[in-house]
This record gives sequence, C-alpha cells and structure tokens, in this order.
Amino acid sequence: MGETVVGLTCTSPTNIAVVKYWGKRDIKLNLPINSSVSVTLDQSDLKTITTVTASRAFTDKGDRLWLNGQEEDVPSNSRLVAVFREIRRLARETPASEKDDSALVKDPDQVAFWVKSRNTFPTAAGLASSASGYACLVFALSRLLGLKTTPEVTAVARQGSGSACRSLFGGFVRWSMGEKVDGTDSIASQVAPAEHWPEMEALIMVASRAKKHTSSTSGMMTSVATSPLLAYRAANVVPERMSQMEAAYLAKDFPKFAELTMRDSNQFHATCMDTYPPIFYMNDVSRAVTNVVHAINVGYEKVVAAYTFDAGPNAVIYVLKENAMNVLALLLLAFPAGESESSGVVGGEGSGYVLSSQLEATQALLENGIPDVHPDLVQQMRDIGDAGRLLQVIHTRVGPGPQVVEAETETFWK
Amino acid sequence: MGETVVGLTCTSPTNIAVVKYWGKRDIKLNLPINSSVSVTLDQSDLKTITTVTASRAFTDKGDRLWLNGQEEDVPSNSRLVAVFREIRRLARETPASEKDDSALVKDPDQVAFWVKSRNTFPTAAGLASSASGYACLVFALSRLLGLKTTPEVTAVARQGSGSACRSLFGGFVRWSMGEKVDGTDSIASQVAPAEHWPEMEALIMVASRAKKHTSSTSGMMTSVATSPLLAYRAANVVPERMSQMEAAYLAKDFPKFAELTMRDSNQFHATCMDTYPPIFYMNDVSRAVTNVVHAINVGYEKVVAAYTFDAGPNAVIYVLKENAMNVLALLLLAFPAGESESSGVVGGEGSGYVLSSQLEATQALLENGIPDVHPDLVQQMRDIGDAGRLLQVIHTRVGPGPQVVEAETETFWK
Repeated sequence: MGETVVGLTCTSPTNIAVVKYWGKRDIKLNLPINSSVSVTLDQSDLKTITTVTASRAFTDKGDRLWLNGQEEDVPSNSRLVAVFREIRRLARETPASEKDDSALVKDPDQVAFWVKSRNTFPTAAGLASSASGYACLVFALSRLLGLKTTPEVTAVARQGSGSACRSLFGGFVRWSMGEKVDGTDSIASQVAPAEHWPEMEALIMVASRAKKHTSSTSGMMTSVATSPLLAYRAANVVPERMSQMEAAYLAKDFPKFAELTMRDSNQFHATCMDTYPPIFYMNDVSRAVTNVVHAINVGYEKVVAAYTFDAGPNAVIYVLKENAMNVLALLLLAFPAGESESSGVVGGEGSGYVLSSQLEATQALLENGIPDVHPDLVQQMRDIGDAGRLLQVIHTRVGPGPQVVEAETETFWK
Repeated sequence: MGETVVGLTCTSPTNIAVVKYWGKRDIKLNLPINSSVSVTLDQSDLKTITTVTASRAFTDKGDRLWLNGQEEDVPSNSRLVAVFREIRRLARETPASEKDDSALVKDPDQVAFWVKSRNTFPTAAGLASSASGYACLVFALSRLLGLKTTPEVTAVARQGSGSACRSLFGGFVRWSMGEKVDGTDSIASQVAPAEHWPEMEALIMVASRAKKHTSSTSGMMTSVATSPLLAYRAANVVPERMSQMEAAYLAKDFPKFAELTMRDSNQFHATCMDTYPPIFYMNDVSRAVTNVVHAINVGYEKVVAAYTFDAGPNAVIYVLKENAMNVLALLLLAFPAGESESSGVVGGEGSGYVLSSQLEATQALLENGIPDVHPDLVQQMRDIGDAGRLLQVIHTRVGPGPQVVEAETETFWK
C-alpha cells in the first residue's frame, strides 16, 4: 500500500429508543443495566457523514479525527481510543475467509486513520448525535478493513456510545444487555428491517436547542447509585416490555406499540426524577406535548400518536403515515410559532410550512382534510392555542442502516 | 336537652407529609397502600375553624354543613355522610365510663348536627384544605359527644379524607396503613409532639393558585391501576423509609430528615409520571425551586433545607429556625416578585417583606447577616435571579393538634 492514501465515505442514521437505555453496569465498556429497542430514522433528514482515510504516511501523527471541522484530541478521548483499538483488534483476529476480499486496508497495524465527520441535523435539533456519529465511524472503519457488520462490530460501536450500536441497522433494532463481564454478548441486532413497516413516521418537536444540564453518562451514574425505582424497572419491568414491544412492532400493532412507547418514556423520566438529586429533562412544553398527544388520541377514539422523550425536552412523536399530516395539523393548532427565523416544518409533505404563520399553515393542512377527526378535536386544539413555543418540527420516518457513499471521499483532502 | 341548641368551636391544623400517601387499596374506606408520616403545621397561619351545633330541633332537616359560607349538600356527599354516620356509631358504642362526663350531647341519635366551617389559608395557598377540614369536623363532633381522640376517632377522620387523620395530632404524626379489610387498624398516632422539635419551620412557596387538573382521588386510582413503580414503592421502599424517617425526627437529625423528605417527594412525583396517562403536578417553577434548594445545600456544605411537593406545584421547604431567615433571603434572591398585589411574605420574622420589592426585602434580610453562608452562594442566587415567579411565601412552623375555642360558638347563628 506504500504511502498511498485509501479511504471511503459512509453515512449513518440516528435512532430513537422506544424501550429506553438508562443506567450502566460497566462505565468503561458501556454495558447497560437493561436491554433497549429503537426505531432507526431516515437519513434524508438526520445523518452523520464520515470519511475515513488510512495511510502508512499518517502513522507518525497517529489516528486523528475532525468533528464538524474541529479536530478532536484523540489520545485524551478514551471512547475514541477504545474504538480505534477494538476495531484494529477485530480486524487482526478475524480470519481472511470472513473478510471482504476487496478491503482497502489489509493490515490495520501498518496505518493510521484520519477521519472527518459531520452531522446534518437541522440547526442542532437537540437530538443526540453520538449514536449516529460513533455508528458511522465504526461502520466506515469496518468496511475499510473488510469487516461485515457482525455482533462484534456492534460491540465496538457500543464502546464509543452505548446507543450507537443500534444505529448500525435500519428498521427496528434491539440492543441486548448481555450478561458477560467482558461485554461480548452486549450487542445489537435487527428485529425488523425498515421495509417491514414503512408507514412508521416520526415528528420531532424541537422546543429547545439548549444543551442539557446533566450529561447522560453522569446522569446514569447518579441514577444507578440512588434510584431504587430504576433498579426495579431494569430488573422487573423492562424484560417483559421488550418482548411486548418487539411483538407489537412485528405485528404492526400501532396502538400497542404506541402505548408501550409512551409508558416507557414516562417511566424513564420517572426514574430520573427518583434520582437524588433529581434529574429533570422534561419541561413545561414537554408536559404540554404529552397532554396534547393524549388529547388527540382521546379525540380520535384510538391511539394514533405516541410521544417519547430522550434525555432532553424535545418530543419525538411516532405516527403512521395515514395519520401523520392530520396529527401534525392538530399539533400546530396547539403550539404556536417560536421566535426563531428557522422555525418551520422540515421534511415530509408539510415541509416548508413555517410555524410563524401557524394559522395559515394549519389552514392549508386542514384543507387537505382531517377526514376521520371529529371537529370537536380540531376546536379543542384551537382552544389550547398556546401550549408552548416550538422552534421546529422535523417530519421523518423509519429508515435503513449505514450506507457507503464512495463519491465524497475524493474531496477529503482538498 | 329539649329544643335547646348546644355547640362548640374548634380549630384544626393542616399537615404536610414527608413520607407521602399516594394510592388507596379501598376507595370507600380511604385505606392506603402505604403508611405515611407528616409534620403538623402551626395554626397561626393556616387552620380550619369549625363550629358544630346540635339540637333536636334540627332533626327534621337532618345534618347540614356550610363551608366558607356555602351550604354543602350533605346527603349527596358520601364522605360527609360517612363521617356523621361513623361518629354517631362510635358515640353509641363507647361505654359512658370512657366518655367525658360533661359531653354536651349524650345521645347522638336524638339530634342533627349543623356545622359551619371555614379556612383561614392566605388567599388560597394551593394547599390541601381537606385534611384540616375533616380533622376539624371530626374533632369538634367527637368533643361534642364526649369522645377522646382515640384511634377509632382517627379512623373516622380518615374516611372523610385520608390525610385528615394525621391532622388530629400536633408535631410529627404517623398514619399506619393497617392490614384489616374493615380499616379499623388504619389509624393515626403521634410520633412526637410539637415541643419535641420546636425549631422545625416551614416556608410555603406559593407559585400557583390554580386548581389542580387531576384530583387526588382520581389520580391515585389511575396510579394504582397503571404504575408498576408505585406498587414497588409502596411494598418495598416505604416501610424502611418510614422507620428511617421516624428515627431521624426523634433524633432531631435534620440532614437525614431532609434527605429522606426530598427523596420521598421526588419518588411520589416519579410514580405520578409513571402513571398512564402520566400525571404532572410539578411545573417549571417547581423544578427551579428543587434545583435552587440543592444549590443552597451545596453552598452551605450541609443540608439546611428540604423541599417537598404535594399534589400541586407549590413547594413546602422545611428549615431549622437557625437557618430559616438566611434560606428565605437566598430563595428571594433567586425568585423575583409575582405580579399579584398579595405577593409577600406572611408569618414569621420576615412577615411584611413584599416580594414585589424583592431586592430591598432581600437587602434587609441580608443586613441581618447570613453569617455562615459563603458570599459565592449569595452571588449564585443573585445570578439565578429569575428562576420563576412566586406569589407568596408563608413562613410557619411545627404546631399542636386541634383545639377547642369555645368563644366563637356564641355567634354561630347571628
């Protein structure tokens, strides 16, 4: 390979858990106290793009990584160090017969990796980028080294960021907590591909772009140390909920999927509140979204929307395609425009509707008809009118796993 | 007794639980799923005043009750019906030897009771008045009938409103959940009188006077039916916490009492959030109070203040007398004036400080000196500055149980 530079570019999706991961039993290895399962979101709206290059010429400076144009200090970042170390180990230990013949890098110990990574999340949506980021890094490195997305590869991504292992697949993805001390059975696997339930869509309600006060890692440590309810949840609630959730998803039973999703989000935030001192991720707008979603479901006389909140105040609302525009219209009636210029609906059929002209936007949506919604519900949402300010709604859907997109690599060093 | 009217007037205190009551195992009898324990608050600031009268002449119209000047429809109020029925039964079944010889009513079945009751809570403090209200009714009826405050009398108050049984005593009061189906062992008893720890004071932070969306009874029913965390809390967390809490109170160990109080309030609200649909009583101001109290404790380098929230957004902050004015000053720095004319500090040494002149008020308080508080903490509270709007602070303390105040009875029918 000499002094040549080889490389490739990949994209990876983010994912939003419906049975939540909260609590580590091993902080260094990112081993969780319970299993979790998530929907992988489409990459047209939210993704990480990562170009990994490798060369013998890089070795004097070691592995390097630029995130959104800023170089990270790799040696001082134990997560990045672990990912580079573990993916090299895997490449070394994997028999050639199990590798892709056309791998660009045959011997990982002869090269250093220089990596550029950026996120295309609309104006900091308040969504975790570490899942798509570490998934993309590990996926790109694994392809460069000729590795397939094996369970072992998901375990490497997990060591970067726990939920990253779930972003290595599209569709509906389980992260099994595992039992072993070394974490080799704490791996991700696909429950169903994106094509299984393509009607699954998501409305990301961006109410705040503020960085969260409590980082997930420190929050989890405090919760594990102080919340008796978290220990009970992990051991006694999650196992059965995982089974029910996977069964509901496989059966495409939206009402069941939705109820489990909402219950699990609520329980996760309950364990945060049971932490000492308590951790609050939801705010008054989050609570208003919760109440409005329940009101919409009551108005529909069936469950058509399910909220879930990660470690922050922004809701992700799962809806089926047939109800998505109606639910969006109802939500826009209850939540007026934020003051930001970038307020608006991004993605999906409603794209371009600007929240600052909420009433016109909603009128336009309503003209498309809310055929099976009782007029009382429309009026109820109008009456709520000012439940909280939204900055942005991102309309997206279930999507596939990481992709190789060679074209971009060419421009890496220009 | 003929056609004469006899009567007496009593006052009763409210109480704020530090191990919370949430969940009924029997709705009709108000039997709880866990024991609870509370501090009885002084009656100089918050009390119910109830005059009960009895006469044979009243019997054609039956038992009647006026609450704050409005007549209640007693026959349609099953709680009131139960209280009148059960106190008569107790009077009938109690041997004369166990009764007060000077009882004004010897035979409860020969008279009807006409009752006037009012609360002296400052401008609807958002505090539950049902505890002091039912305690006062039952206490006054029991005295009129010559009954002492026996366990059986507390069980009658419990059937009016669960937490009312704890308002029948001063100081620190336990409500034992009991085991029997008929509820006869679900009774209140005093852990320590008010004189045991007279330095125990409370700051009631009134942030909202809005009526709560979810009534306690319906909220409890939904929680019991849907929250796995509530069932776990009741069976596995509360029993040990009750022991620890009572031991801390008896030992006057404020840091331990405070930590248990905060943990229990948080856990109660966590179980509300784990309810489906979730119940939210705390709002953004409540969360700000929580965070500020933790910041004050960190700044003091010891636990000097403990928040607790009932089924509403208003905090009650327990403090010891030696720290009360300093903690009040720090809180006023972090929370500016509300817009109401009635904003202000009521009760205690700070009484009369009006929140709308927050800075002057705080300056006055600070001039009294915050001797053992680091200036950094004062500056930190100043920097927070606008954590939320308060309408009122009521400064009160631990107090005695119900009292007979004969004088007012005379004016009952005027």
